[in-house]
Formats: sequence, C-alpha cells, structure tokens
Amino acid sequence: MKKTKQEYVIGVDLGGTNLRAGVVNSSGRIISRIETPIGDQKSWKKISGLISDVVGELKKKSPKPPRAIGAGVPGIVDFEKGIVIRAPQFPNWKNVRVRGDLERLTGLPSVIDNDANMHAVGESKYGAGKGRRNFVLLTLGSGIGGGLVLDGRVYRGDFGFAGEVGHIVVEPEGFPCNCGGKGCLELYAASRAFGNIDNSLLTPAFAAHLARGGNRVALKLWKNFGYYLGIGIATLVNVLGIETFVIGGGISKSWGLFIAGAKKSALAHTYSFHSKRLKLIRAKLGGDAGIIGSAACASDCRKGFIPCTNF
Amino acid sequence: MKKTKQEYVIGVDLGGTNLRAGVVNSSGRIISRIETPIGDQKSWKKISGLISDVVGELKKKSPKPPRAIGAGVPGIVDFEKGIVIRAPQFPNWKNVRVRGDLERLTGLPSVIDNDANMHAVGESKYGAGKGRRNFVLLTLGSGIGGGLVLDGRVYRGDFGFAGEVGHIVVEPEGFPCNCGGKGCLELYAASRAFGNIDNSLLTPAFAAHLARGGNRVALKLWKNFGYYLGIGIATLVNVLGIETFVIGGGISKSWGLFIAGAKKSALAHTYSFHSKRLKLIRAKLGGDAGIIGSAACASDCRKGFIPCTNF
Repeated sequence: MKKTKQEYVIGVDLGGTNLRAGVVNSSGRIISRIETPIGDQKSWKKISGLISDVVGELKKKSPKPPRAIGAGVPGIVDFEKGIVIRAPQFPNWKNVRVRGDLERLTGLPSVIDNDANMHAVGESKYGAGKGRRNFVLLTLGSGIGGGLVLDGRVYRGDFGFAGEVGHIVVEPEGFPCNCGGKGCLELYAASRAFGNIDNSLLTPAFAAHLARGGNRVALKLWKNFGYYLGIGIATLVNVLGIETFVIGGGISKSWGLFIAGAKKSALAHTYSFHSKRLKLIRAKLGGDAGIIGSAACASDCRKGFIPCTNF
Repeated sequence: MKKTKQEYVIGVDLGGTNLRAGVVNSSGRIISRIETPIGDQKSWKKISGLISDVVGELKKKSPKPPRAIGAGVPGIVDFEKGIVIRAPQFPNWKNVRVRGDLERLTGLPSVIDNDANMHAVGESKYGAGKGRRNFVLLTLGSGIGGGLVLDGRVYRGDFGFAGEVGHIVVEPEGFPCNCGGKGCLELYAASRAFGNIDNSLLTPAFAAHLARGGNRVALKLWKNFGYYLGIGIATLVNVLGIETFVIGGGISKSWGLFIAGAKKSALAHTYSFHSKRLKLIRAKLGGDAGIIGSAACASDCRKGFIPCTNF
C-alpha cells in the first residue's frame, strides 16, 4: 500500500564534464540513474538536447510518470525567472532560459537553481540539515559553493547571487581571484589553496596523502586551509548569526586534516557565546547531492508554481 | 476625516547615556517626544521604572491611546522571546525579560529588538529602504550596527545574533576586538578607526574637520576607513547577493570623506556584474531613527502576536 503513495521526480546534476541524472522517490532515494559525459560542445542547444534524451530514458525507468524535473547548474541562476545568468564552465551561456526550454522539451514542470542551492535543499530535506531552521552549506571543491538556508528557506538575494561564500574577502590585498576581486576565501580554502601557497600545485587528495604520511609542507598547507576556512565561517557566524555549517564537496573527505583548525580559528574570531554552540558537520548526501538535491527541490514543483521558496 | 484613521504607538530608543522616546503616528512622524539622561545606575529595575514613567507621560500627550510600544536596545536580543541576552552598555543585564516587564508595567503590547534592527525596520517602512526587498542597514558610530532586510523581513538568525556586520573579519591577524575576536570591521571603519591607526585618538568629527582642511594624516585615516568599509560591503555583497546598502549613524555625516573610497574598494572585491548596480545610499531617519524604527516595528504589534516578521 505504501508504494502507491510514492511519487517520482527527476533530478539533474549538470557539471562541467558530466551530466548525471536520476529518478528519485519521495524518500530521497535514487532508484534509477544515468551518467554521461557532455563532450566538448557545450552550447545550450547541445546540452538541452542531451538532457532531453536522458530525461526520456529516465521516464521509461520510472515506476510512475515523474512529476517534475529539478536541475542544478554550476553558475549564477535567477531562480524565479529560471534563467542561467552566467556559468563559468559554459562560457557561451548568457541569460539562457533553461527552465522554459526544459519544460518545452520534456513536457514536465521544471525548476533550476545553482547547484549548491540545490545541495542545500537536499541536505535540508533528507540530510545533515534536516530539522534545522538555519544553516549554511559549504561545498569544498575547485571553488567553494555556498547555500544559505535561513528561516527554513534557501535565501537567494537580489539576482540569485546570494551564497557566494567562496568570495568572502579574507585577505584584502591577497591573491587575485577569477571573480575580479582579490583575497577571496576560495583561494585559501579550496583546491586552489594547494596551488597558490608555495606554488606547490598539489591536488587536495595528494596533499592529504602526504599529510597523513607526516609531510611537513603538506601539513602546513592543511593548517592554512583550516585557518582560512575558519575565518570565513567566523564572518558568516557574525553576519548571519548562524551556528550550523554543513560541509560537503570532494575536499570534505579530508575532514580530519582541517576541521579542528577551522573550528579553532572560527572561535578565535567570534563571540565566546558561540563557543559551545558552533557546529561544523559533514554533509550526508555525498556524491549524489546534486541529483538528490535537485529532486528535493523539484518534488514541490507544479506547473506555474515555483517551489523551494518555502519547502 | 483622515485624522480618525491615525493610530499612535510609542517608540523607545534606549542608549547607554540617554533614553529617548516619542509618540509616533501612522505616517512615521514623531508628534511628541521626551529625552532624559539615564544616569549611572543602570540596573534593569531602574531603567524599566524610568521607561514606565516616560511611557506614562507620553500616553497623556497622545491624541488617542497608543496601541503598543516598540523599544530598541543596543545589544543582543532574542526577538521572539523578548529577552535581552547581553548589552555591552548595561553590563549587569543577562537574559533580561524586557518585553514581558514592559507589557506588565505599561499595560501595552510590546516588542523589543536590537537597535540596528529597529532602525532597519524604520528605514524599510519610512526611509531609504522603502520598497526595497533586500538591503543591509549599516550604522557607523562607536561600533558598526547592522540590520539585514532579506525578502522584505528583518533576518535575525539563530539567537538574534544576525547582522553583527561590525565583526566581519577584515584582517585575520588584525587588532584585538571587544568581541573576543580580532581584525573586525568595526575596528577599521567606525570611530575606533581614528584611535587604532597611528594611535591618533581623534574623534571622527575632528578627523573630518582636519581632513576638510587638507590635513594629510586625517585624509589618510578617512581613506583607510573607506577602504575597509568597502571590504566589509564586498563580503556582504558576495555572501548575501544584496546590492543596496543604507548607511546611517553619526559618522555618516562625513559621507563625502569615505563613500567614494568605500565604493571603489567594494567593487574591487566583487564580480563586475555588480559594478553598475551597487548602491550605497544614506539613511533617511537621522537621529530619530531609534524612535521611529521602534515605533514602525510596534505599529504591527498586537497582544500575543509578534510583528516585524513580515512587515
């Protein structure tokens, strides 16, 4: 009997290299999935065709017709209008009407958002943020993605720009950043931290390997990484009054190498009031966060109604 | 006929030195006011008695019985519970049930909040923030007060700690701050900026006087002030995606000495996307912001209903 209550949605996780998508049930479980490289031709026309094909395949695999599609995109998204304003990994995309095209191509109500926002919705609904009214999601990877869940809702700001926590200024005259600014957090506490400091050009995974073997340079790099992550967290605590941080992304696998340092430096830069309350916890959705989060957002989606504004 | 529609509330602005209060009409105008020094004895018992007396006087001066009281307090306030958690200028206050006592003493529905939040409500309803869905209020004085208006509501965070923008970390290893941290924005872009740098110990007003006369040291101090204010604003733009900043407080009188520098440094630390959109505008409520803002919040106040969560 329970099965008849299940509903299905499609979650799409568009990355710069691969397209991953799945049919997700009402409990946030992926029951069928497809992963495919997107190739070098990255026009929206090409990508939208690919998504349309993948959705067609997934429709066949879904126990019931899926109700909606949610798609996470690594870029700046006007959530309400359904437009991708800019996506660094898709340089030709400028103000692309992704949501409208998806609805037209697939016939399903759709919702799109920045991938970190989708991840935040997923963690809020099914993961480490469950039951928490306020938290910040940080994804540590090539940059730092951020999603702000405030009063139970994803907060998006004036043009979908909210949550660019990787660009908190931690060193006013620091390294130049791709955003046009300098001294941004993601130069010090994401994968670039291992390239910028001492010109070491390590991958985070290799730096972790070396650090676990006791290599001093690598240990120093992770110490710096934790220190700056904590500075960024301190600023978020002070600005938002939020004490729960859900941390995911590939680099979070090296949790033990940076988290104590991050907490120490965060507490050294905030009111003592927070010392017993600050929680830095690991994201739960792992590598499937993109699919599950996008599906979580889509699950409230109905034609003409934009979900995730009060999930 | 219009007059019969007017309603009246009492706005209370509690400072470390003076208590100011007034009867405010539905248009946000103060129609009667009282200002009195609070003296050296700063226990809540003493202050609450004083507020009660002042409210008694104002009731007599109100054309119709006032409907409610709003009170702004310079400290950290649990808005929903009506408790002042901590107020640096009232060192003995710890978790004081200010709202409950006010209601008991005056017989009027009451609401209390941090003074900068009240100011933000006032600017949103009657001032420079009118009609804006998202803005940050910054008050530049002995410290930096902050109020975040997000999606049309004041955002307060987990324990009323949101909006402590004066404690954005702008120099990770900078000057020590009263909050227990270091390198906080308010050490570089509030009155302390004129004491900490070069040990000059100027007041902002005197520094402004000197700078207008061409004094190089004073001009340098204002340049620094603007630079760091811009760093803080850049971080807020990047975290919140907000592009409108309403700036008030006593130091905002020296607007011309810092605002161009603040804008320049903010834009040097954000996406170019923001360059034509960033708005740094002056607060409109001036010295009456405390009274008018608190009244604006109280105007929606009814017994058992907490206003300002969706004004």
